[in-house]
Amino acid sequence: MQGLATVLAGIPLAAILVGPDDRIIAANQGARDHFGQGLEGRHLLTALRQPDVLEAIEASLRDRQPRKITYQTSEAGRDSSFQVHVGYVETLDARGTLVCFEDLTEREHAAQMRRDFVANVSHELRTPLTALMGFIETLQGPARHDQAAIDRFLGIMQSEAARMERLVRDLLSLSRVESEERVRPREEVNLGQVIGSVLHALRPLARDRACEITFEAPDGMIVRGNDDQLQQVFTNLIENAIKYGGTGNHITITLERIARDATLRAPAILARVRDQGPGIEPLHIPRLTERFYRVDTHRSREMGGTGLGLAIVKHIVNRHRGRLRISSTLGEGAEFSVILPQWDRQEA
Amino acid sequence: MQGLATVLAGIPLAAILVGPDDRIIAANQGARDHFGQGLEGRHLLTALRQPDVLEAIEASLRDRQPRKITYQTSEAGRDSSFQVHVGYVETLDARGTLVCFEDLTEREHAAQMRRDFVANVSHELRTPLTALMGFIETLQGPARHDQAAIDRFLGIMQSEAARMERLVRDLLSLSRVESEERVRPREEVNLGQVIGSVLHALRPLARDRACEITFEAPDGMIVRGNDDQLQQVFTNLIENAIKYGGTGNHITITLERIARDATLRAPAILARVRDQGPGIEPLHIPRLTERFYRVDTHRSREMGGTGLGLAIVKHIVNRHRGRLRISSTLGEGAEFSVILPQWDRQEA
Ligand SMILES: Nc1ncnc2c1ncn2[C@@H]1O[C@H](COP(=O)(O)OP(=O)(O)O)[C@@H](O)[C@H]1O
Ligand SMILES: Nc1ncnc2c1ncn2[C@@H]1O[C@H](COP(=O)(O)OP(=O)(O)O)[C@@H](O)[C@H]1O
Ligand SMILES: [Mg+2]
Ligand SMILES: [Mg+2]
Repeated sequence: MQGLATVLAGIPLAAILVGPDDRIIAANQGARDHFGQGLEGRHLLTALRQPDVLEAIEASLRDRQPRKITYQTSEAGRDSSFQVHVGYVETLDARGTLVCFEDLTEREHAAQMRRDFVANVSHELRTPLTALMGFIETLQGPARHDQAAIDRFLGIMQSEAARMERLVRDLLSLSRVESEERVRPREEVNLGQVIGSVLHALRPLARDRACEITFEAPDGMIVRGNDDQLQQVFTNLIENAIKYGGTGNHITITLERIARDATLRAPAILARVRDQGPGIEPLHIPRLTERFYRVDTHRSREMGGTGLGLAIVKHIVNRHRGRLRISSTLGEGAEFSVILPQWDRQEA
Repeated sequence: MQGLATVLAGIPLAAILVGPDDRIIAANQGARDHFGQGLEGRHLLTALRQPDVLEAIEASLRDRQPRKITYQTSEAGRDSSFQVHVGYVETLDARGTLVCFEDLTEREHAAQMRRDFVANVSHELRTPLTALMGFIETLQGPARHDQAAIDRFLGIMQSEAARMERLVRDLLSLSRVESEERVRPREEVNLGQVIGSVLHALRPLARDRACEITFEAPDGMIVRGNDDQLQQVFTNLIENAIKYGGTGNHITITLERIARDATLRAPAILARVRDQGPGIEPLHIPRLTERFYRVDTHRSREMGGTGLGLAIVKHIVNRHRGRLRISSTLGEGAEFSVILPQWDRQEA
């Protein structure tokens, strides 16, 4: 590689250089990733299809003035948004127009996610809150002397308030985990013990739903982590298996050592939580860790869910430099695996 | 401008080109904005003070491999964060290292704001929720047959639930306004009428606090806007003036035409809401429109505030392509001005 191609290679954005004959003189890797291979030598019109961008390039070749254009595309169901910077260039190697593509997609997506999140939180709170306010009013008036009604209403109020409390608690967990996500935890944590104590706490729920749970763990399954957060991970996964697996379900939890995990590039510990419930349709799987995403909102609410459990799991696993893997065969159950780097004495 | 300087000018990031003698060959406007004028010809060490970046540049001059470094700075109380891309360049004009500075500050700031926001929402909800749950429990047990206690508790529960409802309502307003912020409203709105109806709705509150309100408006104060949102703006501002101005306060509201507003570069309408209360210390003024920012949190809560009122005002005014101006003299009161572009028949 030499000449202006070396300059383009150094620009951390998709960039192409267009000659006065409207042919592409050079392109960098970012541009190839975006527009495809073999850009050099091609006519502009065969590579770019944005009329505004083409017009700006032509204009800058004429008047040598810089220009800025934004455009949106929607390809393969994915919306993208770019700001394009066009500037006239004249060096000993070539003259033409430098076109840099700044990808705004992620930023706009983040802003959209935030707005959706706030709207979701508000909607989740609104329903129980409206119910509560209605009951308070009824207790103040019509039901004032009806002890049976009072008892029943107080029971419902209690469960609505508890729902809101779970939501607030999960929101706080989520924001705490997110804010620490870059700080890797440092404690030595025994995963077998963590899962054991989670199972102990979930025993009443499992009994209610006639769930049989098998747990196998070799000794010494130690990872570098945060005890409370790993408890939260397995509480959420096992609770989901109990709740969504249906009554009379059989849940299997295993822990095993992996000599070297390909993605983590290190010795790892694999924890699996498998149920024999109805499973999850493939189209939902990639979205389960989104905040408030549920396959069946009604069912999740009925079970007291907040829709934040797997989002919290994902962030905690990320913080631990691990991976979450979800697989399912419809009708045969679902499996949630957490792969965590094994405790390494050297690192500590 | 010619040679590689024209290429650097086309890169939409701060960028410098460093020669093999460690002197800066060229720099673009972004780099001058960030590092100061007169960069060309200077030795690298006199312009850049990040050891990691210097090291990466030296190394790439030696081995011609690209590198990526991130660094944080904290200058004049402002935290900034950069990702620096370093790449070897060899053209007919020059050879050296191209250094591009990608500013991550805004993105990280946005992420931090989001986390703070979620934490704030949760904390705001937690207090009334805990109170509610406590009362429900008491009503179920100890106070079960004590009608006087029941009545009193239900009254408090009602006001705690109402507090949560205001918060949820303001959260929804905020997310709605934010998501529409780029879509300029189109209706013809009479500001005099808007303020008149807000004053009508706030009359009971003003009477409770022995507030005298003077409102003067010439006819035909028409802006291009959204009626509901402008009602919200003046409700929030006038309610604040009543609540924070103290009892027996005198509030003056005026509307006037401005032939040409310097910032908006158009004929405008200026609406002022002035109170004679205690005013606001200068250090708080720039932060009042942040979500959940309050001068005195306890007092705001006591008044039933959510801390979101002025954030909503700011977003609505932005959506209207207007400006919000806050000024205050301690001990003499505060003035909140909204400047909106005047209705223009041509635009419509
Ligand atoms: N083991 C499982 N089997 C079937 N569906 C599941 C299972 N675990 C999670 N899901 C689905 O994923 C959704 C999101 O889970 P989660 O984030 O924990 O939220 P919540 O449980 O509060 O609804 C659930 O609503 C459910 O639809
Ligand atoms: N007219 C005013 N005089 C003094 N302080 C004010 C006035 N208006 C607003 N403030 C201050 O600005 C803060 C933020 O206002 P706002 O966003 O409306 O939230 P809230 O009223 O719910 O607290 C208030 O808590 C108060 O401290
Ligand atoms: Mg769950
Ligand atoms: Mg207010």
